[in-house]
Amino acid sequence: MIVTHPPNVRYLTGLNASAGAVLVTITDCALIVDSRYLQVATVLTQDHPRLRVRLASAALDAAIAEEVRSSRVTRVAFEAAYLPVARYHRLAALLTDRTCEPIATPSHTEFVATEHLVERLRGIKDAAEQATLREAARRLSRVAGRAREFVVAGRSEMRVAALVDAAVRDAGFERPAFDTIVASGPNSALPHARPSARILTEGEGVVLDFGGIYDGYCVDLTRTLHLGPPGAGFRRLFQAVWEAHAAAIAAVKPGAYAADIDGAARRVLERHGLLESFGHGTGHGLGLEVHEDPRISPLVSPGERVEPGMVFTVEPGAYVPGTGGVRIEDDVLVTESGCELLTDVAVEL
Amino acid sequence: MIVTHPPNVRYLTGLNASAGAVLVTITDCALIVDSRYLQVATVLTQDHPRLRVRLASAALDAAIAEEVRSSRVTRVAFEAAYLPVARYHRLAALLTDRTCEPIATPSHTEFVATEHLVERLRGIKDAAEQATLREAARRLSRVAGRAREFVVAGRSEMRVAALVDAAVRDAGFERPAFDTIVASGPNSALPHARPSARILTEGEGVVLDFGGIYDGYCVDLTRTLHLGPPGAGFRRLFQAVWEAHAAAIAAVKPGAYAADIDGAARRVLERHGLLESFGHGTGHGLGLEVHEDPRISPLVSPGERVEPGMVFTVEPGAYVPGTGGVRIEDDVLVTESGCELLTDVAVEL
Repeated sequence: MIVTHPPNVRYLTGLNASAGAVLVTITDCALIVDSRYLQVATVLTQDHPRLRVRLASAALDAAIAEEVRSSRVTRVAFEAAYLPVARYHRLAALLTDRTCEPIATPSHTEFVATEHLVERLRGIKDAAEQATLREAARRLSRVAGRAREFVVAGRSEMRVAALVDAAVRDAGFERPAFDTIVASGPNSALPHARPSARILTEGEGVVLDFGGIYDGYCVDLTRTLHLGPPGAGFRRLFQAVWEAHAAAIAAVKPGAYAADIDGAARRVLERHGLLESFGHGTGHGLGLEVHEDPRISPLVSPGERVEPGMVFTVEPGAYVPGTGGVRIEDDVLVTESGCELLTDVAVEL
Repeated sequence: MIVTHPPNVRYLTGLNASAGAVLVTITDCALIVDSRYLQVATVLTQDHPRLRVRLASAALDAAIAEEVRSSRVTRVAFEAAYLPVARYHRLAALLTDRTCEPIATPSHTEFVATEHLVERLRGIKDAAEQATLREAARRLSRVAGRAREFVVAGRSEMRVAALVDAAVRDAGFERPAFDTIVASGPNSALPHARPSARILTEGEGVVLDFGGIYDGYCVDLTRTLHLGPPGAGFRRLFQAVWEAHAAAIAAVKPGAYAADIDGAARRVLERHGLLESFGHGTGHGLGLEVHEDPRISPLVSPGERVEPGMVFTVEPGAYVPGTGGVRIEDDVLVTESGCELLTDVAVEL
């Protein structure tokens, strides 16, 4: 199997690089890198005796093709969810062009499109990964505890985002895990608002959604605040989302269907007449990527279950043009007996 | 043509979104978005009367297929450099499955793999884009002018990176354009080092490579400093890279071959015995992406020329294990008569 998706390469080998590939056969594992990463890759082989480094002296794909050729395999799986069509064509051409074949190999290598192979392994976090995510969530919670210090009337959304990002770094994260969302007033009704020059004002809600990467692993947290006393409409919205959030967390246990965890949140919002106001999934896996398996959404296939070792967000929301938006997000780990809340910070309007 | 690469979607329509697609036909332009971006997309149509919005009520690809079907085209180009194989298969299946076709259409839609179509348009910046990049480079130069304030012995690389990032935001950028590089001492010999906990120490070099996104457009700048007086070896390295940098900039003019601009820098380093120490290209285009066309590298096809309106980096470097690394990077605009240096900050060791 040719693995090219950088987080999958990192998971299998430890290499944290924007480019690189792994060729895994039954007996062997080759890490293919260009000269920029040669030194780092070589260090990795000291911890992984079965890992071997191949330097790509020219284009990476040419080196991948060479490696496939010299491995003498005839069927090669690739990551169809990530490999672009053009690169696939290039690899296929490199592997069928006999003129540049220095050794006798089959005239044709069969490519097999696969999806979710490494991702599925990544979905179950081992003890070390759980410890990393637990520590990351603890640190992110500490940042969230300072939310009221950041969210001050008179500041722009962009300024608040910059303060949050600085706090995330000060808390020991490599960097924010994604572009921090600070969505105030009418902007809070947009689930994917970007921080703007809009000035925060008394009497409006503010959604704060931010994350951090800690030792390679991503955590993600959202709180909704209100500047000054909220009106009855906003309070009802908040209460409904909070109930949905609690219902979804209560549904998390080994063997639970992902669609049922999502459904638990959705049913609460439906009861409050907010079904149409919740236009996204309830959660997503966390790990080397900030959005990974499992998806906690009505769109997953009905058979998908959560298992011990999975870590994901629970983040229902409701977005009502005119009234504003509310989202509350925590990170959970599925345990043998139920679930552990990794983030730990008060939910207060 | 189906356009799916987000920067290309943004270039054609103004939509700044992580998901979305454009279907361009000879007569029509449809912007396909999910509910998250419906409001923003609708606003964009006010400025673009020929742009039409289609809401993807379920999966985006199903809506793309619907749009292709209703446009009644029989040949559709797609962006082969970006569309993953799995998504290509899904789209092809959606467009050949007659059972879900509500209207009479050809039984088969022909897909045509294309590359670099929108990218080539993007390569030539119009007056408004040039003004944005000029202003962005001016602001980034101001941040670079504070380099000596950031690079202080006793601070960790990560701490310096955080200070640079904060300064980038304070200078009015949306955010850093990529992960800031602070590479000190032995780390400076790694062209793609990541900031570590390593503490900066007197008597060593520090490479500072950072960028910012301003109104959607990326600029990028590198300076190399030395804490305390540099030794003769490091000074020679610095001098060689500086000469290579000047030679490459002097080679920038309309009609120049990209490979020749790269060659100008490379020849200087070769003369200094540093050819093997320069393992990357001389530059890359800047725009909605921080790495885009044109590539200024020995690997581009020999016929590639630079044209007025192109904006790219010039960033030769030399990396010598033991001695350390040096990189100097500025951003240039090709003009009708030669080149304009967009970044403007002293080069001082």
